[in-house]
Amino acid sequence: MSRIDGRTPEQLRPVTIERGWSKHAEGSVLVSFGDTKVFCTASVTEGVPRWRKGSGEGWVTAEYAMLPRATNTRGDRESVKGKIGGRTHEISRLIGRSLRAVIDYKALGENTIVLDCDVLQADGGTRTAAITGAYVALADAVTWAQGRKLVRPGRRPLTGTVSAVSVGIVDGVPLLDLCYEEDVRAETDMNVVCTGDGRFVEVQGTAEAEPFAREELNALLDLAVTGCADLAALQHTALEATLEK
Amino acid sequence: MSRIDGRTPEQLRPVTIERGWSKHAEGSVLVSFGDTKVFCTASVTEGVPRWRKGSGEGWVTAEYAMLPRATNTRGDRESVKGKIGGRTHEISRLIGRSLRAVIDYKALGENTIVLDCDVLQADGGTRTAAITGAYVALADAVTWAQGRKLVRPGRRPLTGTVSAVSVGIVDGVPLLDLCYEEDVRAETDMNVVCTGDGRFVEVQGTAEAEPFAREELNALLDLAVTGCADLAALQHTALEATLEK
Amino acid sequence: MSRIDGRTPEQLRPVTIERGWSKHAEGSVLVSFGDTKVFCTASVTEGVPRWRKGSGEGWVTAEYAMLPRATNTRGDRESVKGKIGGRTHEISRLIGRSLRAVIDYKALGENTIVLDCDVLQADGGTRTAAITGAYVALADAVTWAQGRKLVRPGRRPLTGTVSAVSVGIVDGVPLLDLCYEEDVRAETDMNVVCTGDGRFVEVQGTAEAEPFAREELNALLDLAVTGCADLAALQHTALEATLEK
Amino acid sequence: MSRIDGRTPEQLRPVTIERGWSKHAEGSVLVSFGDTKVFCTASVTEGVPRWRKGSGEGWVTAEYAMLPRATNTRGDRESVKGKIGGRTHEISRLIGRSLRAVIDYKALGENTIVLDCDVLQADGGTRTAAITGAYVALADAVTWAQGRKLVRPGRRPLTGTVSAVSVGIVDGVPLLDLCYEEDVRAETDMNVVCTGDGRFVEVQGTAEAEPFAREELNALLDLAVTGCADLAALQHTALEATLEK
Amino acid sequence: MSRIDGRTPEQLRPVTIERGWSKHAEGSVLVSFGDTKVFCTASVTEGVPRWRKGSGEGWVTAEYAMLPRATNTRGDRESVKGKIGGRTHEISRLIGRSLRAVIDYKALGENTIVLDCDVLQADGGTRTAAITGAYVALADAVTWAQGRKLVRPGRRPLTGTVSAVSVGIVDGVPLLDLCYEEDVRAETDMNVVCTGDGRFVEVQGTAEAEPFAREELNALLDLAVTGCADLAALQHTALEATLEK
Amino acid sequence: MSRIDGRTPEQLRPVTIERGWSKHAEGSVLVSFGDTKVFCTASVTEGVPRWRKGSGEGWVTAEYAMLPRATNTRGDRESVKGKIGGRTHEISRLIGRSLRAVIDYKALGENTIVLDCDVLQADGGTRTAAITGAYVALADAVTWAQGRKLVRPGRRPLTGTVSAVSVGIVDGVPLLDLCYEEDVRAETDMNVVCTGDGRFVEVQGTAEAEPFAREELNALLDLAVTGCADLAALQHTALEATLEK
Repeated sequence: MSRIDGRTPEQLRPVTIERGWSKHAEGSVLVSFGDTKVFCTASVTEGVPRWRKGSGEGWVTAEYAMLPRATNTRGDRESVKGKIGGRTHEISRLIGRSLRAVIDYKALGENTIVLDCDVLQADGGTRTAAITGAYVALADAVTWAQGRKLVRPGRRPLTGTVSAVSVGIVDGVPLLDLCYEEDVRAETDMNVVCTGDGRFVEVQGTAEAEPFAREELNALLDLAVTGCADLAALQHTALEATLEK
Repeated sequence: MSRIDGRTPEQLRPVTIERGWSKHAEGSVLVSFGDTKVFCTASVTEGVPRWRKGSGEGWVTAEYAMLPRATNTRGDRESVKGKIGGRTHEISRLIGRSLRAVIDYKALGENTIVLDCDVLQADGGTRTAAITGAYVALADAVTWAQGRKLVRPGRRPLTGTVSAVSVGIVDGVPLLDLCYEEDVRAETDMNVVCTGDGRFVEVQGTAEAEPFAREELNALLDLAVTGCADLAALQHTALEATLEK
Repeated sequence: MSRIDGRTPEQLRPVTIERGWSKHAEGSVLVSFGDTKVFCTASVTEGVPRWRKGSGEGWVTAEYAMLPRATNTRGDRESVKGKIGGRTHEISRLIGRSLRAVIDYKALGENTIVLDCDVLQADGGTRTAAITGAYVALADAVTWAQGRKLVRPGRRPLTGTVSAVSVGIVDGVPLLDLCYEEDVRAETDMNVVCTGDGRFVEVQGTAEAEPFAREELNALLDLAVTGCADLAALQHTALEATLEK
Repeated sequence: MSRIDGRTPEQLRPVTIERGWSKHAEGSVLVSFGDTKVFCTASVTEGVPRWRKGSGEGWVTAEYAMLPRATNTRGDRESVKGKIGGRTHEISRLIGRSLRAVIDYKALGENTIVLDCDVLQADGGTRTAAITGAYVALADAVTWAQGRKLVRPGRRPLTGTVSAVSVGIVDGVPLLDLCYEEDVRAETDMNVVCTGDGRFVEVQGTAEAEPFAREELNALLDLAVTGCADLAALQHTALEATLEK
Repeated sequence: MSRIDGRTPEQLRPVTIERGWSKHAEGSVLVSFGDTKVFCTASVTEGVPRWRKGSGEGWVTAEYAMLPRATNTRGDRESVKGKIGGRTHEISRLIGRSLRAVIDYKALGENTIVLDCDVLQADGGTRTAAITGAYVALADAVTWAQGRKLVRPGRRPLTGTVSAVSVGIVDGVPLLDLCYEEDVRAETDMNVVCTGDGRFVEVQGTAEAEPFAREELNALLDLAVTGCADLAALQHTALEATLEK
Repeated sequence: MSRIDGRTPEQLRPVTIERGWSKHAEGSVLVSFGDTKVFCTASVTEGVPRWRKGSGEGWVTAEYAMLPRATNTRGDRESVKGKIGGRTHEISRLIGRSLRAVIDYKALGENTIVLDCDVLQADGGTRTAAITGAYVALADAVTWAQGRKLVRPGRRPLTGTVSAVSVGIVDGVPLLDLCYEEDVRAETDMNVVCTGDGRFVEVQGTAEAEPFAREELNALLDLAVTGCADLAALQHTALEATLEK
């Protein structure tokens, strides 16, 4: 059985990672997972939030948002509504936690890196694309900080790589990297964040229709681990290219 | 190796579920997992949110909050700050999703049940205690609605039971139902929501320090499934008692 | 003529004052006036708000709130609405003023005590129950601060005791400590805060239906003074017991 | 002993009530109690808030605010802060309750009158000046509504008159109508709202320094009743003049 | 063709500038352009916003607001709505920029002047009346600051004078100083801020109905320059009078 | 004298207008004026805001925002701050007015078009790029609406074209289309919105340093008219290309 867009169940959508998409940010990436496009910037500032001052340790945080017409029908801006919605909060926190998992705060020193992930176009998997792209922007920002001697020589603030992918069960079949249409029809939906060496940073599985069994969970985790490995390879290739800016 | 409070790794804290704790609410429970105490009420109203009107289907939603001095140091009220924090949003959404997993919207008819979970005292595991207690309050509210003929005769709005527990790895050992001190020291932390028949509704695992391996994930899931089964038995016992009100 | 619940006009509802209801707070009380239950905590922090720094004087403030289902129909949370309502503001200010009336700021030193009064169940008189319970929590918190030497030896931050009660005229009869049903029917409604030695801290009378005459005001004040004396005795008894914590 | 501004203890400050101060509002008054100046408008709209629709009854409500430089040092605008402060809430509610005490909702019919009381210059007693001025604006608005046949012929929406004054004990002496300097020094401070026939609508007394005794309360009430009677006479005179507009 | 109120096209409405309208503010003016009345206060505080500290330079800013019943139908308060509207923001910024154009920040020293322009009654041209009145309040505040030696001797913080007027094309005829009725009917509407020596500080023209041609723009600018010169003369006269306060 | 980037005073930066940049929106454009990049989408919905219902007329409105790292240093998100800033409000309103100037509401029928202009990268002139790009997105959205028969046959909702450009005086020389560095140094800064036939829709000139004379204003207007004509030609070329989507 082939999928809506002709993929096999264990196949990612076409993924592109364009670095240097902003002239201002210390790291910036336009990442796309099929028709999902997320613009990720990494902004470095010296200093840390007040509660961390004097600790000698840095901080990494993230903010996620969707442009109002990123989706099929226009959504109201959260700035106009005057408050951040629950979904935005949840995803921003997930991205921040995921990237902090590969940061050595001591090595970063008292510097802060903010990752902004703005969805320009959504077609499912925006949070996983955001994490995958944000890692690359973060890597470029860390390199920039090292070049500026903000980080002490010989220290490596990044302890590994991180990528993320969604998996789900649609009509009883476990699928990798769901597009929007598949996501809507999924009985179970899971977002998995892995390090480049195949360990888990975050596993979030939700029964959308029916509670799921242990075997289904296992099948989804298998699929996700493979997908994250593919994404890690794509991140590696993207970061190997020379960034002219 | 025994735990801070003398428990074995796979042992729950003392759990109590007191029904009928409010004279106003259609269902109400004071649940405690050790020193964690959550007051759960279930409020039934006829009618559904606008986007669901005319569907013939009901709705269940949840709101979680902590009293300002539920924790060791006083936190500012979100009402005074004028906005809901990310953590509150995230947990409220988790509770809502968990309970909707055992609801048959058609059977509920166009009625809404709101679950309010207010933490009176926190010592780790507030969200899992909240889900476990809210289920019992929900069950009482459904019974109330059936008694009032809000639900059509012969229909059963509840399709199963649901409970939740936290698990985590502390000093390399997988532990069930972490108290606050253990939670702070955990390398990996997971919240698992199961149905009474042992299937998963929600699995949320986070690497707090180090990314975790598949075997660790498996050990935690095993522990959680056992813990949820114990909680399901306690819910059953609590609901079997006659509620005098 | 006897009242809805069989009391005489000058009789309080059954009042209970349970101390030590929280393991975290420096003072904590679950107070009930009949079916009205308010959870009061007193939190001590060293230091004072910015506008008071360097004065050598302490500060006491209060926040009042109702859980959403404390009443017969569920009310929206103020945190979700994003703002504090007028009634909440008014009552929080009243509680703070009432307790500050028995505080010697100099003796307290540059420490702050915040009183949180959260209504778990409402049946009329929530603000007077809150003041009466908050006083006991405050007394415990002051004792705690003395034990920690936060207060200079020999100084007594509490200059007296304070309690509060509602009074009102229903069907032409002045009644003490109105329950919700009586409150709704009252022509005139008054909240009176007294010190243990029978003087007034706050008198707030409102004509709900008809303006009231001086004699009615006098009758209500007489009733309130008696009620507050009874409450002061109950506070005294509660504070005499040994608090095991 | 004479007061700061040479008044006797039982003397009001010079009071002026200028009607027709706005060309747009149905009733409008610039009221001054000495240097305290409040601009009161009464706006009539057909219809009532949703919760009152179909009742055949009208509604009266009030909003109080201070211009940022009404006081000696500039205060931030509540619109800029994004929220209404507790003091503003409390006073707005007091004004609304006070004026509703002389309204016959049935006679008003399903019309709403909003009283806006904006303090242009503050020198103590802004809330009592606001109530006293708002009554006159309300009376003009009711006359306007009667002229437009919004009110059924023969019905009188106003059942009486209402005015308010502050009283307080300064250096042991009960004083009428405190100016700011006196207010700051008062040991006890009371705001009293009376009807024209000398009955009470609202009595709010607060011990600022020391709790007060029953005799002090009595002396203050005596003073307030006299002051309100004087104000009622001034309102009467103001309303007798022909309003050219 | 004569206008609604009998004026010629190039004639201002009757303009009054009353100084010393507040006993608290360092400068205060009640300005009226016909039935438009704006209360302007200038508040001087020592010190500047954080981003300007240590620069040796002062700051001038403005806030504009309308009372709820300044217009023909009552508008909701922005404080109640919890946010500032776009129109308010836009006008506040315009007033601030206009007055900063005649300020020598170095001469002002590290002092801040806030201009509050509150519209008591609106009949078109509220922003231009506000700028014209605020200038006079600002001049009085600067004189006050000079008297208090907040400004170094010999320095003149004011480098010129500033006034503003609206112009528009109604039925093809360019008109000066539009009242509300004319404003509503205008095809093109322009607000022009000029210095006393006839140069431009701000020009804001908007096609309300049809785009406008260069000649129309020129005719409007000619009219505005004349109007501003008239206003500058009125400001001069007002400031020449002795201010008794 | 040549400019920072080698342009002559009357030369635009390289301008690109890419249509069809979003798969969801009815019209979408990525417009760049040099390094300034704005993503504009036009969203069509049937129906109009409440205040316009039943009028038979449509509505067009706009929202402008900057991504947090569109500028050289990261700015806080307005959604996180919980309110829209004054600059954002001002520009959103300007874009909306500019585009409404070329809309025939009757021809549009009761449909609403919302223009979202999100600045991805800023280097001066973001509001003028936004207007110029939004016009093209609007034109595509109108064509889409005509294709769907939302617009009655034979009616043309667009009555003309509109584009915008900034002009300013730097070191005494009038320059067209300022980049950020020029903008910062400009003595006078003006944004001009013109229709394709060379008439004015909006003229907003501000003296940043010195008030400006009539001749300077004239020189700037001359420059702006030429720049807008160039932009109109570029819009025309962009819209002539076939849009494959």
